[in-house]
Amino acid sequence: MAAPAHDYDLVSVDDHIIEPPTVWADRLPARHREAGPRVIEADGREYWLFEGERVATMGLNAVAGKPAKDFAMDPVRYSDMIPGCYDPVARARDLLRDGVRGSLCFPTFPRFAGVRFLTADDKDLAGHCVTAYNDWMIEEWCGAVPGLYIPMIIGQLWDPEAMAAEIHRCAALGARAVTFPESTHAFGLPSFHTDHWDPVWRALTETDTVLCIHIGTSGNTNMPSPDASYTVAIALGPIAAQITLMDLLLSRIPREFPTIKIALSEGGIGWVPFALERVDRTWDRHRHWSGLDDVPPSELFRRNFWVCFIDETMGIEARHHIGVDRMMWECDYPHADTPWPNSQGDVRKALAGVPADEVAAMTHGNAEQLFRWHVKPDVDAILGLA
Amino acid sequence: MAAPAHDYDLVSVDDHIIEPPTVWADRLPARHREAGPRVIEADGREYWLFEGERVATMGLNAVAGKPAKDFAMDPVRYSDMIPGCYDPVARARDLLRDGVRGSLCFPTFPRFAGVRFLTADDKDLAGHCVTAYNDWMIEEWCGAVPGLYIPMIIGQLWDPEAMAAEIHRCAALGARAVTFPESTHAFGLPSFHTDHWDPVWRALTETDTVLCIHIGTSGNTNMPSPDASYTVAIALGPIAAQITLMDLLLSRIPREFPTIKIALSEGGIGWVPFALERVDRTWDRHRHWSGLDDVPPSELFRRNFWVCFIDETMGIEARHHIGVDRMMWECDYPHADTPWPNSQGDVRKALAGVPADEVAAMTHGNAEQLFRWHVKPDVDAILGLA
Repeated sequence: MAAPAHDYDLVSVDDHIIEPPTVWADRLPARHREAGPRVIEADGREYWLFEGERVATMGLNAVAGKPAKDFAMDPVRYSDMIPGCYDPVARARDLLRDGVRGSLCFPTFPRFAGVRFLTADDKDLAGHCVTAYNDWMIEEWCGAVPGLYIPMIIGQLWDPEAMAAEIHRCAALGARAVTFPESTHAFGLPSFHTDHWDPVWRALTETDTVLCIHIGTSGNTNMPSPDASYTVAIALGPIAAQITLMDLLLSRIPREFPTIKIALSEGGIGWVPFALERVDRTWDRHRHWSGLDDVPPSELFRRNFWVCFIDETMGIEARHHIGVDRMMWECDYPHADTPWPNSQGDVRKALAGVPADEVAAMTHGNAEQLFRWHVKPDVDAILGLA
Repeated sequence: MAAPAHDYDLVSVDDHIIEPPTVWADRLPARHREAGPRVIEADGREYWLFEGERVATMGLNAVAGKPAKDFAMDPVRYSDMIPGCYDPVARARDLLRDGVRGSLCFPTFPRFAGVRFLTADDKDLAGHCVTAYNDWMIEEWCGAVPGLYIPMIIGQLWDPEAMAAEIHRCAALGARAVTFPESTHAFGLPSFHTDHWDPVWRALTETDTVLCIHIGTSGNTNMPSPDASYTVAIALGPIAAQITLMDLLLSRIPREFPTIKIALSEGGIGWVPFALERVDRTWDRHRHWSGLDDVPPSELFRRNFWVCFIDETMGIEARHHIGVDRMMWECDYPHADTPWPNSQGDVRKALAGVPADEVAAMTHGNAEQLFRWHVKPDVDAILGLA
C-alpha cells in the first residue's frame, strides 16, 4: 500500500501510550513481580493491580476512533480500544497515514508525570518500575519503529539525585525528554522555589533533555463546582498550563538554569499573549517589594519555554505575540481531543493563511530542533507503506 | 478650578471603597452596635472589630497615590491612605480630574462579594449589616455626589429569598448591581448548578440588576507553590474569572434565566477569545454524553456576560473575537493596579488605533447601557470643578 501524499509533515509533541500488560511483568526483578504493576480481570473489566491495590484507570480517555457520541472517560479493557493505543506498530500505521512522522508519548498507568510510583510503599520496587518503564519506552516502544517515537522517560520523583542519574543514563540511550508534574508542592514535595530539584535541572541542562509538563499532573482538576458537568474541567484544562507557567516564570529555575528547556504539554496557546502581558505588568508593578528585579518574565518565556496546540485559531492568529519559534503541533492521540484520523484537515484549517516557513516551524521544525529529532525519510518504508 | 479637558469620558466598572468607620456604627440597631463592625486602635494600628474578633484587613491593597516602590498589601490605618479611599467627595475630585465620570465600587470590609456576613454567628446582626451597608451605599456614598457612583449592593448569601427581597428593595432605591462570589460551593453553599439560587437570579432579571462577580471572591488564591512570590498570585488573578466563566457558561443559569446580566470584574479580557474557542470546542466534542446539547457557550457569553479591562493591549487587539459590546473599562481605584492619576494616558495607549465608536462603547457606552446609567453633565459643577 502506498503512503498517501500529505500537505503537512507533522511531529506531534503530545500523544499518550496505553501501556500493554507486559511493561513491568516482563522487566521487573523476580522479587517484585507479584507487587509490581500487572493487569487482572475482575468484576467484568480489566484493572491494573499495583502493590495489591486495584487502579481503575485502564485507558484514560483513550477514545480515538470512536464517534463523539460514544465518548466516555475510560475504556475498561484493552479490547475496547483500537490497537494503536497500546501497540507501537499499529499506532505507527495510524499516525503515518495521517502524516504524523514524529510522536512524543506520555505514560498513562504511571500517570502523565510518572507520579504513580512516588506514592508507592516500596521505593525499591518503585525505582525498578521507573527504570523498567524507561527501558521499555526506549527499547520496545521507540525501538519498534525507529525514527518515529521521540523517547521520553519518567523519573524517581522522591529522589532528585537518583532522577538526575536516570536522566543521564537514559540520555545516553537516546532519551530526549522527561515528563514532570505541574506542581511538586501538590504532592507534598518541595516547590519550584526551592533548590531541592537542582540536581534534576542540572542533569537536564547537561544532557540537553527537555522537561515536559503536561496539564492535569498537579493531582487537582479545576472544578469550581463538584456537581458541574465534567465538561467544565475539560474546558478548564489549559488553565493548568497558565498556572504552571506563571509559577515557573516567577521562580528561580529559568534564572539559575538559563539553558533549561521546558515544554508545556496540552496547555494550548491562545492564552499565552494575555499571560505574558499580564505577568510582565505584574512583575513591573510589584518587583520592587517582591525581590524579582531582573528580567521581564516574557523574555524568559521566549528563551526557556515552548507551548503546543491542536487546532486553535485564536492562538495562531496571535502567533507573533507568542513567538512562532515557541509553538508546536500536537495530535493527542488517542485521547478525545485528537484530530486523528483527520490531522491533515485539522492542520489545514488551523493554519490557513499562515506563511509556509511558519507552517513548517510549527508543524515539525520547532519540535525537531527542540528535541534534536529529525524525521526520517524511511519511516514509511519501515512500515511497508512506501 | 476649571475641570481639565479630557479626551475620554470614562466610566469605571471596578473600583473599591474603603468603608469609613461610621458605616455600621451609625446605622445598626442599638442592640447590635457592640457586636457590629467598628474600628478600634490596638497594637499601633487600626482594626475592624466584628463579633468580638479583630479583622486585620483595613484597606486591602489601597495604595493609590503611592509610588510603586512603596507598595505593600495593606495600609494599617486610614491616615496611611489618600482620603479618596474612604471619602466619596474626595474620591469624586480624584476621579473627575482623571476624566472618570462614573464609578461602580466594591466593598472591602464586607469583602468584595459581601461574604463577610455569611460566616457571622448572629444572622440577625448579619442581616442588619447587609441592609446598613446597602443603605449607606445608596444614601451616603452615592448620595454624596449624585450621578457619579453607580449603586451596587451586597446580599444575604445565607438566605436566597431574603437576598431576592433585598434586591427588589434596593432596586426601588436606585441600585443597579449586586456583588456575588465567584463560587458559592467554596463557601459550603449549593453550587451554580443547583436551583438553590433561583430566587436571586429571578430577582435580578425582574429588576434588571447586574450580577457583578469580582476575581478573588472564591476564598481561594491560585498559588501553586505557597513559598512563591505573592506576585504569582497577582499574575494569576484573572484565572479566577476564566474559571468562573466556564462554570457559569456550562451551568443552567444563562439557560434558565436568558435575560440575566453577569459582569466579570477585574478579570481582564485578553484570555476571552481563547476561552470561548476552548469552551465551544469542548462543548461540541462532549455534549453528547454530558447532556449539554443546546446552544454553543460562546453565544451565551455574547448574550449574558460582560468583561472589563484596565490597560491590556492583547485583548483590545482581539476585541472582535470578544465582542466590543461586551467590554468595559475599569479604573480599580485605589488598588495597586489602578492607572490613576493617569487614566487618560493609560486609555490613550491601550486604545491607540481603535475607531472612535468602539472607543466610546468600551470607555463608557457599554457600561452606561448595562447599568442603565447616564453620565450627568453636571458632575463637574456639583464639585465646583466647572
